[in-house]
Amino acid sequence: MVDYLIGVDGGGSGTRALVQSSAGPFVGSGEAGPSALGQGIAKAWRNIELAIRSAFDQGSLALPPWNRCALAAGLSGVTHAPLRDAFLAADPGFARLDAETDSFTMLIGAHGGKPGVILIAGTGSIAEALHADGSRATVGGWGFPVGDEGSGAWLGLQAVRHGQAAMDGRANPSPLARRVWMHCGDERQALQAWCAAAGQFEFAQLARAVFDTEAQDPHAAMLLQRAVEAIEDLALAVDPRGRLPLAASGSIAERLAPRMRPAWRGRLVPPKENAVAGALTLIRQAQAREPEEAV
Amino acid sequence: MVDYLIGVDGGGSGTRALVQSSAGPFVGSGEAGPSALGQGIAKAWRNIELAIRSAFDQGSLALPPWNRCALAAGLSGVTHAPLRDAFLAADPGFARLDAETDSFTMLIGAHGGKPGVILIAGTGSIAEALHADGSRATVGGWGFPVGDEGSGAWLGLQAVRHGQAAMDGRANPSPLARRVWMHCGDERQALQAWCAAAGQFEFAQLARAVFDTEAQDPHAAMLLQRAVEAIEDLALAVDPRGRLPLAASGSIAERLAPRMRPAWRGRLVPPKENAVAGALTLIRQAQAREPEEAV
Repeated sequence: MVDYLIGVDGGGSGTRALVQSSAGPFVGSGEAGPSALGQGIAKAWRNIELAIRSAFDQGSLALPPWNRCALAAGLSGVTHAPLRDAFLAADPGFARLDAETDSFTMLIGAHGGKPGVILIAGTGSIAEALHADGSRATVGGWGFPVGDEGSGAWLGLQAVRHGQAAMDGRANPSPLARRVWMHCGDERQALQAWCAAAGQFEFAQLARAVFDTEAQDPHAAMLLQRAVEAIEDLALAVDPRGRLPLAASGSIAERLAPRMRPAWRGRLVPPKENAVAGALTLIRQAQAREPEEAV
Repeated sequence: MVDYLIGVDGGGSGTRALVQSSAGPFVGSGEAGPSALGQGIAKAWRNIELAIRSAFDQGSLALPPWNRCALAAGLSGVTHAPLRDAFLAADPGFARLDAETDSFTMLIGAHGGKPGVILIAGTGSIAEALHADGSRATVGGWGFPVGDEGSGAWLGLQAVRHGQAAMDGRANPSPLARRVWMHCGDERQALQAWCAAAGQFEFAQLARAVFDTEAQDPHAAMLLQRAVEAIEDLALAVDPRGRLPLAASGSIAERLAPRMRPAWRGRLVPPKENAVAGALTLIRQAQAREPEEAV
């Protein structure tokens, strides 16, 4: 007997939970520290439980036994099968437990559980689709440094590459190049040391420099155009027939989506709800299917 | 009083030493383990001393006191100033000690100490020039993953990016894509895990796949063309007037140099000598200048 439905959105910076009674009314929402699986399964579960506890507190309800709760969580790190398995194995006893990617719960939230596409570009980039026949597709999301074309880290990588080339005479010392030097180091030794130490996050910081210099720097404008093409490629591959509504999410996708070609722009819709609401929708749908499945 | 001139070439896989008497005759050559500065200064010195000792052994000479020897070493890691300083500070007492980049000793070797350009593309890529007025220029060599365009690791990165795109429908499952899948993993989970674990060396292993599939795969051919353009850019930036002889070194540069545009191809010369001979030439030149400098 499931009394409560719980949606969780967990990533590297924090965890959110949203709780609804099976009978309908919302109970409350709560937050806690990070629950990205890569940071440790025990830590993930601890913060998920804290966020849920806080949601019940908000609704002035005592925490029920886990076996009266069904949980869907969209978690960063779920695509890594060993982490996902370890997370599921540490289930403290939920009546139902679904672990999904955070991009899938964003998709479900964006379109209220209906078919659609989500195009995410922030530090990384990925597109997911839920098709009318229930099938799913995921494109991109391959990670730094090789993939995630069109993302913030990708834009930053291209910007720094341009700063390097300008420093040694293979490109003009354009406004973007000068911004890179200002940020990373304006002589070879310093720029090289910055590059050796920088990871995905540090490169993503340079994405802003590309947008900021676009008006004065044709190279920056070209990089943004390539980023637009990269996210168009993601959207096309995830929904080749181009019939689904398209929601953009993440700092880069939100800025680039309006620049896509008319065919794409015409399908753009604002996300209906966020990832944690998407997780709640997921578990609600799963519970609603339960009787059918039991037949 | 310097009795012996010593050239050393040291990198991540080994160290070579070449010893010549100040009076002219060669003494011998020797080898030892790695002396890339990044692997530790004490280890670098230990292997340099071992290689020198082995060169004197080969010449059936007793090892002289270090203060009767002048040493020039071309060492991987010298561009990192703290490592270079620590290496020089640990000088066991040579009459003269010069620490240079391994690319510079390759340049000196390639052109016998005369003005010229060396274009190196193996795992990474860099170009160096010694101009007629004695000035030097270095271009590229920025490292993985952001720089080193046209190198083996760069080609591998592009190849894997293509394999990713083909796997999720953004590119054709071409012969190159299939080679990438065969090498790295033929499903998303496996390919993603490979990418997450791979570094410069692992990506460089894929360069061969690009050459191997060139004839059947337009994408592979395009990547090689872009690599050619990248090394042309290096050569142009290091010698903008294009007057110096050009030597190519490294597995990738050797294959790509003959594909450069006629203006570059016409300046190609085979490297005269290797890096350790270049280091010896350097110290010989330095000692020859000594009396002038003392005046």
